[in-house]
Amino acid sequence: MSGTTELHLGDLGERGIQEHVLRPRYGDTEGFGDDSAFLATVTTPSELVATTDSCPTPVVNLLGEPDLYHAGWLLATINLSDLAAAGAEPLGLVVNYTLPKATTVGEFERLLDGVDDCCAEHGTKVVGGDLRDGAATQLTATAVGSCVPGSRLRRSGARAGDRLLLTGSPGYLWAAALLATGRATLPASERDDIWQRACRPMAQLKAGKVLAANGLARAAMDVSDGLFATVRTLGEANGLGAAVTGEFDLDEPLARVCAQAGLRPFDLAQTWGDWGLVVAVRAEDVGLATKMLREEGVAVQEIGTLTADAGLTAGTAPWRGIAQERFSANSWHGGELSTLVPEVLSVPA
Amino acid sequence: MSGTTELHLGDLGERGIQEHVLRPRYGDTEGFGDDSAFLATVTTPSELVATTDSCPTPVVNLLGEPDLYHAGWLLATINLSDLAAAGAEPLGLVVNYTLPKATTVGEFERLLDGVDDCCAEHGTKVVGGDLRDGAATQLTATAVGSCVPGSRLRRSGARAGDRLLLTGSPGYLWAAALLATGRATLPASERDDIWQRACRPMAQLKAGKVLAANGLARAAMDVSDGLFATVRTLGEANGLGAAVTGEFDLDEPLARVCAQAGLRPFDLAQTWGDWGLVVAVRAEDVGLATKMLREEGVAVQEIGTLTADAGLTAGTAPWRGIAQERFSANSWHGGELSTLVPEVLSVPA
Repeated sequence: MSGTTELHLGDLGERGIQEHVLRPRYGDTEGFGDDSAFLATVTTPSELVATTDSCPTPVVNLLGEPDLYHAGWLLATINLSDLAAAGAEPLGLVVNYTLPKATTVGEFERLLDGVDDCCAEHGTKVVGGDLRDGAATQLTATAVGSCVPGSRLRRSGARAGDRLLLTGSPGYLWAAALLATGRATLPASERDDIWQRACRPMAQLKAGKVLAANGLARAAMDVSDGLFATVRTLGEANGLGAAVTGEFDLDEPLARVCAQAGLRPFDLAQTWGDWGLVVAVRAEDVGLATKMLREEGVAVQEIGTLTADAGLTAGTAPWRGIAQERFSANSWHGGELSTLVPEVLSVPA
Repeated sequence: MSGTTELHLGDLGERGIQEHVLRPRYGDTEGFGDDSAFLATVTTPSELVATTDSCPTPVVNLLGEPDLYHAGWLLATINLSDLAAAGAEPLGLVVNYTLPKATTVGEFERLLDGVDDCCAEHGTKVVGGDLRDGAATQLTATAVGSCVPGSRLRRSGARAGDRLLLTGSPGYLWAAALLATGRATLPASERDDIWQRACRPMAQLKAGKVLAANGLARAAMDVSDGLFATVRTLGEANGLGAAVTGEFDLDEPLARVCAQAGLRPFDLAQTWGDWGLVVAVRAEDVGLATKMLREEGVAVQEIGTLTADAGLTAGTAPWRGIAQERFSANSWHGGELSTLVPEVLSVPA
């Protein structure tokens, strides 16, 4: 809609937004404008799953400019990542946005671009949604997916002795934070690459699907609130503890960022924002799982073992990791940048 | 969780809420605690639909006490009503709650009771969700449903000459408002009954299913923003106008409320909050559709005709009805009671 990017949503009104912003973008989607969105026609027996998550303020927005594109991308990633942890194939996303009337059409389009681009990267799309005005921006989505019956991955089902694999490449988001706050320095091209990856985290749908289809995962969970919280919860769901090695392979530029900032790779690897999966795999399946994932282009590393002893250890010491928790005084959602980086990575303020 | 109803959610923290409130209630739900909720196993070919809506402050909360039960019930109704308009069978609801840390466990339990009770009344349930803390309460849900392939109802598909049916009994919510604000008086038992129905609106799932299964509806839409907005939008979706008779059958006590308040039944029938469906039906199918709906216990009345002429008429005059619209200056979402009733019903303040 040319010439309208500076208009406010409150200038257009609900019907104007529908006609001038949403219809040009989504009008060809089957069921556009209907009370219920059309997700898919399912013709083979399927286990259906759904997940819903809201989007916090992206850390990259705290580090850089307030571009709603990043929130849109993150909103889709967060929800698709939960489907990945189930080994599900996405059928579509429904979105639910609360936005101030003063939001410009241009800002709104950036939000929609971020969600749509991320969905397209994962081979899915927004099928419908809801929009209302409110004092504060709130972005929520629900992803629906399907699994082959019997293959759905859950948090439970692991046994003591199962190995823990981490899929994906950890550390990009907080390496970008170290770079953006001057705690490390890299040549511009490497720095730009890290920034791009921090802005465009990918849900591990391919990893989840490969593991589910081949019966190689006994339990899985995505790293949404930090590696420590994930491993702890995965252990608790199975009445187990975990021993992680504390040794992590980081992509090479990230290892240099760590060294400059005086951090171990473990410090960077146990943050969040990269949307890896932690997967429990029988010891004898580790080789096959690793091979199959790498053949699909998925980064994977073994990080530890589930143990009959409760409690978490890293190397030879107890693991007292960091975790985001909601409804608590020390939640980091919406924290200030000046305290966030030091708190998350235990580096000087 | 006895003895904890006065605790605040911020006292329990995310993990405490999970263990002490959510697990006792939902722990037996398959997939409880997993990243993705389990919706259903689909074994026959199905068209899947999804809808998402947030819940405004219920009018009954403005009229009475601030009980989150009503918001919970309404949240489920709003979403299930969209499935009804598609003629879909609900597979389950995922919920997304933002609540202040100061919310008490008792208040939270009332919210969950309202959602769960409404779902149970409609033969479905909450399968999963997300919870986070925030400055203001925001309640969102997504309902997923399935349709027999080819039977899904949409807003489009109607023709000029199709008759408009309204399912459900209109007027309960705003009759309750007239009673609560002293604009009408009824014996206590009738008044209580109207109040109960205003607090517990039912989505028209049975109506949608009967019409879809028998191919009797050419288009359908639920009355979420008032009858005027619904008929106007249904007409626009088909490039048509509509002529409504302006004559409505109200349940008998509501007719007395109207008379006392100096209103026509039409004034009360064109409000919202009762979650009826407006359905376009071929003229020759009106008798059969009406008969089949009544056999299922669904109230239904013919209210008008879709017309080739654009524009809306009520009786012999243009219909200038009332409509809620978001992102506009005159939206009634969150309005004050002192102005809401006069504005919606055009009665003296």
